[in-house]
Amino acid sequence: MAEIRIRAVEAEDGDNGFFKILSQLTHAPVVPRAKFAELVRKERADGSRTTIVAVTAEGSVVATGAVMMEHKYIRGGGICGHIEDIVVDSEFRKAQLGKKIISKLVEISREKGCYKVILDCAEDNAPFYEKCGFEKKECQMALYF
Amino acid sequence: MAEIRIRAVEAEDGDNGFFKILSQLTHAPVVPRAKFAELVRKERADGSRTTIVAVTAEGSVVATGAVMMEHKYIRGGGICGHIEDIVVDSEFRKAQLGKKIISKLVEISREKGCYKVILDCAEDNAPFYEKCGFEKKECQMALYF
Ligand SMILES: CC(C)(COP(=O)(O)OP(=O)(O)OC[C@H]1O[C@@H](n2cnc3c(N)ncnc32)[C@H](O)[C@@H]1OP(=O)(O)O)[C@@H](O)C(=O)NCCC(=O)NCCS
Ligand SMILES: CC(C)(COP(=O)(O)OP(=O)(O)OC[C@H]1O[C@@H](n2cnc3c(N)ncnc32)[C@H](O)[C@@H]1OP(=O)(O)O)[C@@H](O)C(=O)NCCC(=O)NCCS
Repeated sequence: MAEIRIRAVEAEDGDNGFFKILSQLTHAPVVPRAKFAELVRKERADGSRTTIVAVTAEGSVVATGAVMMEHKYIRGGGICGHIEDIVVDSEFRKAQLGKKIISKLVEISREKGCYKVILDCAEDNAPFYEKCGFEKKECQMALYF
Repeated sequence: MAEIRIRAVEAEDGDNGFFKILSQLTHAPVVPRAKFAELVRKERADGSRTTIVAVTAEGSVVATGAVMMEHKYIRGGGICGHIEDIVVDSEFRKAQLGKKIISKLVEISREKGCYKVILDCAEDNAPFYEKCGFEKKECQMALYF
Protein backbone atom coordinates (compact mmCIF):
# COMPACT_ATOMS: atom_id res chain seq x y z
CA MET A 1 0.00 0.00 0.00
CA ALA A 2 3.01 2.28 0.56
CA GLU A 3 3.32 2.82 -3.17
CA ILE A 4 -0.22 4.04 -3.70
CA ARG A 5 -0.47 7.68 -4.73
CA ILE A 6 -3.57 9.88 -4.73
CA ARG A 7 -3.88 12.54 -7.46
CA ALA A 8 -6.44 14.33 -9.65
CA VAL A 9 -7.95 12.25 -12.44
CA GLU A 10 -6.29 12.59 -15.87
CA ALA A 11 -7.64 11.93 -19.33
CA GLU A 12 -5.27 8.91 -19.60
CA ASP A 13 -6.96 7.20 -16.65
CA GLY A 14 -9.63 5.97 -19.04
CA ASP A 15 -6.96 3.45 -20.12
CA ASN A 16 -5.71 2.76 -16.57
CA GLY A 17 -8.76 0.99 -15.18
CA PHE A 18 -10.83 4.02 -14.10
CA PHE A 19 -14.10 2.68 -15.52
CA LYS A 20 -13.40 -0.86 -14.26
CA ILE A 21 -13.20 0.57 -10.73
CA LEU A 22 -16.38 2.66 -11.17
CA SER A 23 -18.14 -0.48 -12.40
CA GLN A 24 -17.76 -1.91 -8.89
CA LEU A 25 -20.08 0.89 -7.75
CA THR A 26 -22.73 1.01 -10.48
CA HIS A 27 -23.34 0.90 -14.23
CA ALA A 28 -20.25 2.61 -15.66
CA PRO A 29 -19.55 1.85 -19.31
CA VAL A 30 -16.37 3.38 -20.73
CA VAL A 31 -16.97 6.99 -21.75
CA PRO A 32 -15.62 7.59 -25.28
CA ARG A 33 -12.11 9.06 -25.17
CA ALA A 34 -12.99 12.54 -26.49
CA LYS A 35 -15.97 13.00 -24.18
CA PHE A 36 -13.94 11.80 -21.19
CA ALA A 37 -11.08 14.19 -21.98
CA GLU A 38 -13.61 17.03 -22.29
CA LEU A 39 -15.22 16.21 -18.90
CA VAL A 40 -11.81 16.11 -17.22
CA ARG A 41 -10.77 19.38 -18.89
CA LYS A 42 -14.04 21.04 -17.82
CA GLU A 43 -13.84 20.05 -14.16
CA ARG A 44 -10.28 21.41 -13.96
CA ALA A 45 -11.09 24.60 -15.81
CA ASP A 46 -14.14 25.67 -13.81
CA GLY A 47 -13.36 23.99 -10.47
CA SER A 48 -16.94 22.70 -10.30
CA ARG A 49 -15.79 19.19 -9.41
CA THR A 50 -12.56 17.55 -8.29
CA THR A 51 -12.27 13.86 -9.07
CA ILE A 52 -9.34 12.03 -7.53
CA VAL A 53 -7.88 8.58 -8.12
CA ALA A 54 -5.55 6.31 -6.15
CA VAL A 55 -2.98 4.67 -8.44
CA THR A 56 -0.43 1.93 -7.91
CA ALA A 57 3.25 2.33 -8.82
CA GLU A 58 2.38 0.67 -12.16
CA GLY A 59 -0.23 3.36 -12.81
CA SER A 60 -3.41 1.30 -12.31
CA VAL A 61 -6.40 3.07 -10.77
CA VAL A 62 -7.49 1.22 -7.60
CA ALA A 63 -9.85 3.76 -6.01
CA THR A 64 -11.68 6.96 -6.84
CA GLY A 65 -13.94 9.63 -5.43
CA ALA A 66 -15.12 13.14 -6.25
CA VAL A 67 -16.32 16.32 -4.61
CA MET A 68 -18.55 18.84 -6.33
CA MET A 69 -18.80 22.48 -5.27
CA GLU A 70 -22.29 23.94 -4.93
CA HIS A 71 -22.46 27.74 -4.81
CA LYS A 72 -25.54 28.56 -2.75
CA TYR A 73 -27.54 31.74 -2.06
CA ILE A 74 -28.06 30.79 1.59
CA ARG A 75 -25.35 31.34 4.20
CA GLY A 76 -24.22 34.57 2.56
CA GLY A 77 -23.44 32.79 -0.69
CA GLY A 78 -21.79 29.80 0.99
CA ILE A 79 -20.29 26.76 -0.71
CA CYS A 80 -21.45 23.22 0.03
CA GLY A 81 -19.25 20.29 -0.97
CA HIS A 82 -20.97 17.16 -2.31
CA ILE A 83 -18.95 13.95 -2.13
CA GLU A 84 -19.89 11.51 -4.89
CA ASP A 85 -18.98 8.17 -6.43
CA ILE A 86 -16.61 6.69 -3.85
CA VAL A 87 -15.22 3.26 -4.62
CA VAL A 88 -12.18 1.19 -3.68
CA ASP A 89 -11.18 -1.87 -5.74
CA SER A 90 -12.41 -4.99 -3.93
CA GLU A 91 -8.83 -6.29 -3.67
CA PHE A 92 -7.71 -3.12 -1.87
CA ARG A 93 -10.50 -2.71 0.67
CA LYS A 94 -10.15 -2.71 4.48
CA ALA A 95 -6.70 -1.15 4.22
CA GLN A 96 -7.63 2.49 5.01
CA LEU A 97 -7.62 3.53 1.36
CA GLY A 98 -11.29 4.60 1.41
CA LYS A 99 -10.54 6.73 4.46
CA LYS A 100 -7.62 8.39 2.64
CA ILE A 101 -9.81 9.19 -0.36
CA ILE A 102 -12.47 10.81 1.87
CA SER A 103 -9.87 12.65 3.88
CA LYS A 104 -8.38 14.15 0.69
CA LEU A 105 -11.85 15.22 -0.55
CA VAL A 106 -12.64 16.81 2.83
CA GLU A 107 -9.31 18.67 2.72
CA ILE A 108 -10.09 19.98 -0.79
CA SER A 109 -13.53 21.14 0.41
CA ARG A 110 -12.00 22.96 3.35
CA GLU A 111 -9.46 24.68 1.10
CA LYS A 112 -12.21 25.78 -1.29
CA GLY A 113 -14.03 27.42 1.63
CA CYS A 114 -17.01 25.06 2.05
CA TYR A 115 -19.07 25.49 5.22
CA LYS A 116 -20.01 21.79 5.10
CA VAL A 117 -19.55 18.61 3.06
CA ILE A 118 -22.41 16.15 2.50
CA LEU A 119 -22.90 12.79 0.83
CA ASP A 120 -25.54 10.11 0.42
CA CYS A 121 -24.86 6.47 1.17
CA ALA A 122 -26.52 3.13 1.77
CA GLU A 123 -27.31 2.47 5.44
CA ASP A 124 -24.65 -0.31 5.39
CA ASN A 125 -21.91 2.16 4.56
CA ALA A 126 -22.84 4.72 7.24
CA PRO A 127 -20.32 3.27 9.77
CA PHE A 128 -17.52 3.80 7.24
CA TYR A 129 -18.42 7.49 6.86
CA GLU A 130 -18.82 7.87 10.61
CA LYS A 131 -15.22 6.69 10.95
CA CYS A 132 -14.36 9.45 8.47
CA GLY A 133 -15.93 12.11 10.73
CA PHE A 134 -19.41 12.37 9.20
CA GLU A 135 -22.71 12.09 11.05
CA LYS A 136 -26.14 10.97 9.89
CA LYS A 137 -28.44 13.86 9.02
CA GLU A 138 -31.38 13.81 6.62
CA CYS A 139 -32.90 11.30 4.26
CA GLN A 140 -32.24 11.13 0.56
CA MET A 141 -35.15 11.00 -1.90
CA ALA A 142 -34.84 10.11 -5.57
CA LEU A 143 -36.85 10.20 -8.77
CA TYR A 144 -35.60 8.13 -11.72
CA PHE A 145 -36.51 9.02 -15.30
CA MET B 1 -52.81 31.99 -6.24
CA ALA B 2 -53.82 32.39 -9.89
CA GLU B 3 -51.53 35.38 -10.24
CA ILE B 4 -48.39 33.62 -9.08
CA ARG B 5 -45.77 33.17 -11.78
CA ILE B 6 -42.72 30.90 -11.70
CA ARG B 7 -39.55 32.10 -13.46
CA ALA B 8 -35.75 31.96 -13.22
CA VAL B 9 -34.20 34.09 -10.47
CA GLU B 10 -33.02 37.57 -11.51
CA ALA B 11 -30.44 39.86 -9.94
CA GLU B 12 -33.29 42.24 -8.91
CA ASP B 13 -34.88 39.53 -6.73
CA GLY B 14 -32.42 40.49 -4.00
CA ASP B 15 -34.72 43.51 -3.50
CA ASN B 16 -37.96 41.51 -3.92
CA GLY B 17 -37.80 39.40 -0.78
CA PHE B 18 -35.62 36.52 -2.05
CA PHE B 19 -33.43 36.42 1.06
CA LYS B 20 -36.41 36.88 3.39
CA ILE B 21 -37.90 33.71 1.90
CA LEU B 22 -34.63 31.78 2.14
CA SER B 23 -34.40 32.84 5.81
CA GLN B 24 -37.45 30.69 6.47
CA LEU B 25 -35.27 27.70 5.54
CA THR B 26 -31.94 28.49 7.21
CA HIS B 27 -29.38 31.23 7.90
CA ALA B 28 -29.57 33.40 4.78
CA PRO B 29 -28.21 36.93 5.21
CA VAL B 30 -28.55 39.21 2.18
CA VAL B 31 -25.73 38.57 -0.28
CA PRO B 32 -24.14 41.89 -1.33
CA ARG B 33 -25.64 43.14 -4.60
CA ALA B 34 -22.54 42.67 -6.78
CA LYS B 35 -21.82 39.15 -5.52
CA PHE B 36 -25.49 38.16 -5.96
CA ALA B 37 -25.58 39.52 -9.54
CA GLU B 38 -22.38 37.57 -10.28
CA LEU B 39 -23.81 34.29 -8.88
CA VAL B 40 -26.99 34.74 -10.96
CA ARG B 41 -24.96 35.57 -14.07
CA LYS B 42 -22.73 32.53 -13.51
CA GLU B 43 -25.55 30.00 -13.09
CA ARG B 44 -27.17 31.25 -16.33
CA ALA B 45 -23.93 31.31 -18.27
CA ASP B 46 -22.69 27.81 -17.45
CA GLY B 47 -26.01 26.06 -16.77
CA SER B 48 -24.56 24.52 -13.61
CA ARG B 49 -27.60 25.48 -11.55
CA THR B 50 -31.11 26.75 -12.23
CA THR B 51 -32.70 28.68 -9.40
CA ILE B 52 -36.38 29.51 -9.79
CA VAL B 53 -38.70 31.82 -7.85
CA ALA B 54 -42.47 32.15 -7.56
CA VAL B 55 -43.52 35.80 -7.62
CA THR B 56 -46.83 37.55 -6.97
CA ALA B 57 -48.37 40.02 -9.42
CA GLU B 58 -46.67 42.77 -7.35
CA GLY B 59 -43.30 41.09 -7.90
CA SER B 60 -42.67 39.73 -4.40
CA VAL B 61 -40.83 36.42 -4.14
CA VAL B 62 -42.99 33.91 -2.23
CA ALA B 63 -41.20 30.63 -2.95
CA THR B 64 -37.93 29.38 -4.39
CA GLY B 65 -36.00 26.23 -5.26
CA ALA B 66 -33.00 25.19 -7.31
CA VAL B 67 -31.60 22.26 -9.25
CA MET B 68 -27.91 21.72 -9.83
CA MET B 69 -26.52 19.60 -12.67
CA GLU B 70 -23.83 17.08 -11.78
CA HIS B 71 -21.85 15.70 -14.74
CA LYS B 72 -20.74 12.23 -13.70
CA TYR B 73 -18.28 9.66 -15.08
CA ILE B 74 -20.61 6.76 -14.26
CA ARG B 75 -23.56 5.88 -16.50
CA GLY B 76 -21.64 6.76 -19.66
CA GLY B 77 -21.11 10.33 -18.47
CA GLY B 78 -24.64 10.76 -17.15
CA ILE B 79 -26.13 13.83 -15.51
CA CYS B 80 -27.67 13.75 -12.03
CA GLY B 81 -29.94 16.62 -10.93
CA HIS B 82 -29.66 17.78 -7.31
CA ILE B 83 -32.66 19.68 -5.95
CA GLU B 84 -31.66 22.18 -3.25
CA ASP B 85 -33.02 24.92 -1.02
CA ILE B 86 -36.79 24.54 -1.42
CA VAL B 87 -38.95 26.94 0.55
CA VAL B 88 -42.45 28.39 0.32
CA ASP B 89 -43.40 31.51 2.33
CA SER B 90 -45.30 30.41 5.43
CA GLU B 91 -48.35 32.44 4.32
CA PHE B 92 -48.49 30.59 1.01
CA ARG B 93 -48.06 26.99 2.18
CA LYS B 94 -50.54 24.14 1.72
CA ALA B 95 -51.74 25.59 -1.58
CA GLN B 96 -49.79 23.36 -3.99
CA LEU B 97 -47.09 25.96 -4.59
CA GLY B 98 -44.30 23.71 -3.27
CA LYS B 99 -45.49 20.98 -5.62
CA LYS B 100 -45.38 23.40 -8.57
CA ILE B 101 -41.80 24.43 -7.72
CA ILE B 102 -40.67 20.78 -7.57
CA SER B 103 -42.56 19.92 -10.72
CA LYS B 104 -40.80 22.76 -12.60
CA LEU B 105 -37.37 21.65 -11.31
CA VAL B 106 -38.08 18.05 -12.35
CA GLU B 107 -39.13 19.26 -15.81
CA ILE B 108 -35.88 21.26 -16.16
CA SER B 109 -33.87 18.16 -15.12
CA ARG B 110 -35.63 16.03 -17.68
CA GLU B 111 -34.99 18.60 -20.43
CA LYS B 112 -31.30 18.75 -19.51
CA GLY B 113 -31.07 14.98 -19.92
CA CYS B 114 -30.69 13.84 -16.30
CA TYR B 115 -31.07 10.12 -15.61
CA LYS B 116 -32.30 10.90 -12.07
CA VAL B 117 -33.00 13.76 -9.67
CA ILE B 118 -32.14 13.51 -5.97
CA LEU B 119 -32.57 15.65 -2.88
CA ASP B 120 -32.06 15.48 0.87
CA CYS B 121 -34.78 16.37 3.33
CA ALA B 122 -35.81 16.11 6.95
CA GLU B 123 -37.85 12.97 7.71
CA ASP B 124 -40.88 15.24 8.35
CA ASN B 125 -40.84 16.52 4.79
CA ALA B 126 -40.56 13.11 3.12
CA PRO B 127 -44.36 12.82 2.62
CA PHE B 128 -44.33 16.10 0.68
CA TYR B 129 -41.65 14.79 -1.70
CA GLU B 130 -43.43 11.46 -2.01
CA LYS B 131 -46.48 13.41 -3.24
CA CYS B 132 -44.12 14.97 -5.79
CA GLY B 133 -43.14 11.51 -7.12
CA PHE B 134 -39.93 10.88 -5.17
CA GLU B 135 -39.14 7.81 -3.10
CA LYS B 136 -36.89 7.34 -0.09
CA LYS B 137 -33.47 5.94 -0.96
CA GLU B 138 -30.26 6.37 0.97
CA CYS B 139 -29.18 8.28 4.04
CA GLN B 140 -27.47 11.63 4.03
CA MET B 141 -24.28 12.16 6.04
CA ALA B 142 -22.73 15.54 6.81
CA LEU B 143 -19.52 17.04 8.15
CA TYR B 144 -19.59 20.70 9.26
CA PHE B 145 -16.44 22.81 9.33
C1 LIG C 1 -17.17 1.71 1.27
C2 LIG C 1 -15.73 1.57 0.78
C3 LIG C 1 -15.38 2.79 -0.09
C4 LIG C 1 -14.78 1.54 2.00
O1 LIG C 1 -13.44 1.50 1.53
P1 LIG C 1 -12.26 0.77 2.37
O2 LIG C 1 -10.98 1.17 1.75
O3 LIG C 1 -12.55 -0.68 2.47
O4 LIG C 1 -12.43 1.44 3.81
P2 LIG C 1 -11.27 1.72 4.88
O5 LIG C 1 -10.35 0.55 4.94
O6 LIG C 1 -10.65 3.06 4.65
O7 LIG C 1 -12.17 1.78 6.17
C5 LIG C 1 -12.05 2.80 7.20
C6 LIG C 1 -12.74 2.30 8.43
O8 LIG C 1 -14.14 2.06 8.15
C7 LIG C 1 -14.48 0.69 8.41
N1 LIG C 1 -15.47 0.27 7.40
C8 LIG C 1 -15.32 0.26 6.06
N2 LIG C 1 -16.44 -0.17 5.46
C9 LIG C 1 -17.32 -0.46 6.46
C10 LIG C 1 -18.65 -0.93 6.50
N3 LIG C 1 -19.36 -1.13 5.37
N4 LIG C 1 -19.24 -1.11 7.72
C11 LIG C 1 -18.56 -0.84 8.86
N5 LIG C 1 -17.30 -0.36 8.87
C12 LIG C 1 -16.68 -0.18 7.69
C13 LIG C 1 -13.17 -0.06 8.30
O9 LIG C 1 -13.24 -1.27 9.02
C14 LIG C 1 -12.19 0.93 8.90
O10 LIG C 1 -12.29 0.91 10.30
P3 LIG C 1 -10.98 1.18 11.22
O11 LIG C 1 -10.49 2.58 10.83
O12 LIG C 1 -11.50 1.10 12.60
O13 LIG C 1 -9.99 0.13 10.83
C15 LIG C 1 -15.50 0.25 -0.02
O14 LIG C 1 -15.97 -0.82 0.76
C16 LIG C 1 -16.20 0.20 -1.36
O15 LIG C 1 -15.65 0.68 -2.36
N6 LIG C 1 -17.41 -0.39 -1.44
C17 LIG C 1 -18.15 -0.60 -2.67
C18 LIG C 1 -18.63 0.70 -3.29
C19 LIG C 1 -19.44 1.53 -2.32
O16 LIG C 1 -20.32 1.04 -1.64
N7 LIG C 1 -19.11 2.84 -2.26
C20 LIG C 1 -19.75 3.78 -1.37
C21 LIG C 1 -20.93 4.38 -2.03
S1 LIG C 1 -21.75 5.51 -0.90
C1 LIG D 1 -42.07 21.71 2.55
C2 LIG D 1 -42.73 22.88 1.82
C3 LIG D 1 -41.82 23.38 0.72
C4 LIG D 1 -44.07 22.40 1.22
O1 LIG D 1 -44.63 23.46 0.47
P1 LIG D 1 -46.24 23.64 0.32
O2 LIG D 1 -46.46 24.68 -0.75
O3 LIG D 1 -46.85 23.86 1.64
O4 LIG D 1 -46.64 22.19 -0.22
P2 LIG D 1 -47.88 21.82 -1.21
O5 LIG D 1 -49.06 22.62 -0.82
O6 LIG D 1 -47.43 21.92 -2.63
O7 LIG D 1 -48.04 20.30 -0.81
C5 LIG D 1 -48.21 19.26 -1.76
C6 LIG D 1 -48.79 18.06 -1.02
O8 LIG D 1 -47.87 17.63 0.01
C7 LIG D 1 -48.52 17.68 1.29
N1 LIG D 1 -47.54 18.13 2.28
C8 LIG D 1 -46.82 19.28 2.29
N2 LIG D 1 -46.00 19.33 3.34
C9 LIG D 1 -46.20 18.16 4.01
C10 LIG D 1 -45.63 17.59 5.19
N3 LIG D 1 -44.63 18.21 5.87
N4 LIG D 1 -46.08 16.37 5.60
C11 LIG D 1 -47.05 15.72 4.91
N5 LIG D 1 -47.59 16.21 3.78
C12 LIG D 1 -47.17 17.41 3.34
C13 LIG D 1 -49.63 18.68 1.13
O9 LIG D 1 -50.63 18.45 2.08
C14 LIG D 1 -50.07 18.39 -0.29
O10 LIG D 1 -50.89 17.23 -0.31
P3 LIG D 1 -52.10 17.08 -1.38
O11 LIG D 1 -51.47 17.22 -2.76
O12 LIG D 1 -52.65 15.73 -1.08
O13 LIG D 1 -53.02 18.24 -1.08
C15 LIG D 1 -43.08 24.04 2.80
O14 LIG D 1 -43.78 23.52 3.90
C16 LIG D 1 -41.86 24.78 3.36
O15 LIG D 1 -41.37 25.73 2.73
N6 LIG D 1 -41.36 24.40 4.57
C17 LIG D 1 -40.27 25.09 5.25
C18 LIG D 1 -38.95 24.94 4.55
C19 LIG D 1 -38.60 23.49 4.29
O16 LIG D 1 -38.69 22.64 5.17
N7 LIG D 1 -38.19 23.19 3.05
C20 LIG D 1 -37.83 21.85 2.61
C21 LIG D 1 -36.41 21.59 2.86
S1 LIG D 1 -35.98 19.92 2.38
